[in-house]
Amino acid sequence: MTSAAAVMTRDEVEVFLAREFPQIGIGENFILEAVGLMSARMRLAAHDRNLRPGGTISGPAMFALADVTLYVAILAQIGPVALAVTTNLNINFLGRPPPGDLVCDCKLLKLGKRLAVGEVWLHAPGRDEPLAHATGTYSIPPR
Amino acid sequence: MTSAAAVMTRDEVEVFLAREFPQIGIGENFILEAVGLMSARMRLAAHDRNLRPGGTISGPAMFALADVTLYVAILAQIGPVALAVTTNLNINFLGRPPPGDLVCDCKLLKLGKRLAVGEVWLHAPGRDEPLAHATGTYSIPPR
Amino acid sequence: MTSAAAVMTRDEVEVFLAREFPQIGIGENFILEAVGLMSARMRLAAHDRNLRPGGTISGPAMFALADVTLYVAILAQIGPVALAVTTNLNINFLGRPPPGDLVCDCKLLKLGKRLAVGEVWLHAPGRDEPLAHATGTYSIPPR
Amino acid sequence: MTSAAAVMTRDEVEVFLAREFPQIGIGENFILEAVGLMSARMRLAAHDRNLRPGGTISGPAMFALADVTLYVAILAQIGPVALAVTTNLNINFLGRPPPGDLVCDCKLLKLGKRLAVGEVWLHAPGRDEPLAHATGTYSIPPR
Repeated sequence: MTSAAAVMTRDEVEVFLAREFPQIGIGENFILEAVGLMSARMRLAAHDRNLRPGGTISGPAMFALADVTLYVAILAQIGPVALAVTTNLNINFLGRPPPGDLVCDCKLLKLGKRLAVGEVWLHAPGRDEPLAHATGTYSIPPR
Repeated sequence: MTSAAAVMTRDEVEVFLAREFPQIGIGENFILEAVGLMSARMRLAAHDRNLRPGGTISGPAMFALADVTLYVAILAQIGPVALAVTTNLNINFLGRPPPGDLVCDCKLLKLGKRLAVGEVWLHAPGRDEPLAHATGTYSIPPR
Repeated sequence: MTSAAAVMTRDEVEVFLAREFPQIGIGENFILEAVGLMSARMRLAAHDRNLRPGGTISGPAMFALADVTLYVAILAQIGPVALAVTTNLNINFLGRPPPGDLVCDCKLLKLGKRLAVGEVWLHAPGRDEPLAHATGTYSIPPR
Repeated sequence: MTSAAAVMTRDEVEVFLAREFPQIGIGENFILEAVGLMSARMRLAAHDRNLRPGGTISGPAMFALADVTLYVAILAQIGPVALAVTTNLNINFLGRPPPGDLVCDCKLLKLGKRLAVGEVWLHAPGRDEPLAHATGTYSIPPR
């Protein structure tokens, strides 16, 4: 596990994502709040298309938030690698999200040469209680 | 594990989903191809909003397909229970989907009073090679 | 998610495990170090039968440590329920354990009426670096 | 995904395991029944140390059976690679095993250059009903 500082800033990651993955809607659906040492935080804005009846955010939207936050944490740590791909994601749904935005905190557990593993917590803004928790693995292409 | 026949037909499940979960876009994005004994098959139509550059279907869209096919297999077996919820889903991404539709086959592994567990394979139409595989658990409300 | 204090002490849990699950070898293979609010810590003693060549602890022994620590955290929180059973456990192996004991820290993510979900980290004594990480679900019998 | 025939026979795998991993107890605890194209079958003999009260096989013993059967299926397909390691294993426990042996069937879902993914079913001899199901990933060292 590396202990080196992140090599990309929040702004650099944002520019990279907007250019390489325009369909994610970075800065619109998905707000990049912060990147740090082996960590990242994103927010999913409560747009209509992510909602289920009752105003709660859908499972696939929660999956997307978990997946992109993990990708961002890896990206910030190793630099722009468009071709890193998710190989596994295991998600536990713990509670029904209240209407509104959803925040996702990611911590990388391992950053190896070939695989990166991290965990994420999804929660309502300003609340600690986890609404979902996921662990995921990305395969990192040879550099 | 039950060995009883499914209690809802394909058409009954489709009507139920269209009424209870209009946002899924049943019959449009997600085509219900068949339901059977402890099983179901759905197809994800290759709409623009599900696509990544290169025309392949996105990870969250694949997650959504896995999740809804599992739900349909449970529904067909136990009858209309809108409140069953996913508690866990573990997905392995195995290959890059080719441009075009994606088919999902679900087999239920266990159908208990409180929990249902199933597995799904995602593959291109007419091809056996799995592009993703998932196992998931639904919590079934007391009846 | 409950915020109530644990209802069993470390010593009470130890007595319960020794009586109900003698084959675990509590206090011998598996040392219960602490229980707390929605948490527990155990240590796996490096006995020969848990070792692989090179003196590292085997995967199944790491699985057993993860599973029992999760069980202990639930037990301490809800009281003696011998019949709670693991329904799902997802484990990521992150690094090769050094020879010697292994410590496991558990934090419960959700404690519902029917399901409890928690995560665990396995690490060498006195070191933070995770060697394995798992999330698991227990089904809790009606009380 | 390869479609090439397995490169090791059942007997060759057995000799390799006995030499490289004597602590597994191949041919004693774990019986290698068959290897095939992207597949393997093993049997866990019901020895006392694997049992829980009531004579059923313990969770860690089921994990060990799942893990080793996956390893054997990979080994048979790619040849003797002692250093392949489990990176992830997700197991769902579906039913209480009856007293007696347990059989595990493995099918590889993907065999790439760096990662192999497979699924396994655990069931009683001669019965189809799955008692546990797991998917796992092995990292394959550069050759």
